[in-house]
Amino acid sequence: MEHESRFLALNLILPPAPEPKGVYTPLLQDGHHIYVSGHLPVNTDGTLHRGKIGKDIDQEAGKLAARQVGLTILATLISNLGSLNKIKRVIKVFGMVNATVDFDKQPYVINGCSELFVEVFGRENGIAVRSAVGVGSLPDNVPVEIEAIFELNEE
Amino acid sequence: MEHESRFLALNLILPPAPEPKGVYTPLLQDGHHIYVSGHLPVNTDGTLHRGKIGKDIDQEAGKLAARQVGLTILATLISNLGSLNKIKRVIKVFGMVNATVDFDKQPYVINGCSELFVEVFGRENGIAVRSAVGVGSLPDNVPVEIEAIFELNEE
Amino acid sequence: MEHESRFLALNLILPPAPEPKGVYTPLLQDGHHIYVSGHLPVNTDGTLHRGKIGKDIDQEAGKLAARQVGLTILATLISNLGSLNKIKRVIKVFGMVNATVDFDKQPYVINGCSELFVEVFGRENGIAVRSAVGVGSLPDNVPVEIEAIFELNEE
Repeated sequence: MEHESRFLALNLILPPAPEPKGVYTPLLQDGHHIYVSGHLPVNTDGTLHRGKIGKDIDQEAGKLAARQVGLTILATLISNLGSLNKIKRVIKVFGMVNATVDFDKQPYVINGCSELFVEVFGRENGIAVRSAVGVGSLPDNVPVEIEAIFELNEE
Repeated sequence: MEHESRFLALNLILPPAPEPKGVYTPLLQDGHHIYVSGHLPVNTDGTLHRGKIGKDIDQEAGKLAARQVGLTILATLISNLGSLNKIKRVIKVFGMVNATVDFDKQPYVINGCSELFVEVFGRENGIAVRSAVGVGSLPDNVPVEIEAIFELNEE
Repeated sequence: MEHESRFLALNLILPPAPEPKGVYTPLLQDGHHIYVSGHLPVNTDGTLHRGKIGKDIDQEAGKLAARQVGLTILATLISNLGSLNKIKRVIKVFGMVNATVDFDKQPYVINGCSELFVEVFGRENGIAVRSAVGVGSLPDNVPVEIEAIFELNEE
């Protein structure tokens, strides 16, 4: 597994790993699976990327927000696991898009996160099952919230 | 397991197994579990069943769309696994209904898929845990998106 | 494990374990995991707590509804498993809030359920991964629907 070296070569700037905004843990290990809580787009300075797609921001900004959620998930993974080499592959991504009721490009938006995961974990291990849906509202009016399941390598 | 023979006796017409609409895979095997991505209602001719329930279509059309999502999931299963006899049972269904904000019959709509799964997998193996919820919007303005988890038989 | 004695000491009043409102089962065991279907806030008399947050009820009433969903999940667990001592810990909570499109306090609302789970299962085993999102609509116009995954103790 060369996830960590591939990640370092990308020179990505990660936001701080977020503290829980409620009574939950950002990450939980269950056997060889890592469950990741719904993550929001945390900027490098710790602020949140906000706005509803179709009202406050457009789908390009939404896709960038989804990428930022992906970076925030990576920050949580590294903060808790120490190295991305602990991870074998991405199992599942659930992408929730805060958009107006006529918006219909949720897969385009969530690709912002999925393309990042392919850059970091490679095509074989970075492409997972996924749902991309439009929700009515999200915490702090962020444009995207994403939860995920990862598989760990056998020790 | 007689899932495949039960399926064949039903003379169901399946749509083509859908290509991914983004950076994801329609199906992923993880040990004895099959994770299925969020599926949309693909018609036999490959087009999508569209419309928001309570605005463009009514709940009966929505229930038919949910059944069509179920048929699309079966197409993905057969295309990837070869035979439904590989499957032991349905574990979980997550049904997302694209409806107006006053709609409250999500379970009725998602029954369109759940009843199909009971026809194909039988009562003992076709009845799963489920959530049925109303989302704000869906890809291509389809009325229903459903993701699912299945358990495989031991080899 | 002292989940059951901790639960009894809390003198909580549980609603009746709900019958399925469609073609699904409220709870499914898969190895050492218990999947719980999306649960609604059932009152002690069997009626449902209704209303959309931001329109019909406020966020405090929403948080109480989320706690009532948690009590309803406990009713399902006890009805099916016999004792909460069968449970090791909460793995995952997915909280769906029926709110107006400008609502942004979903984590506050879902804490109503999460705080209950900490009271019953303790901090070590009651704090799980979680997503809290705003949906467009819910069955019977309830304010909150929650699904969850629990881990069972080894026999």
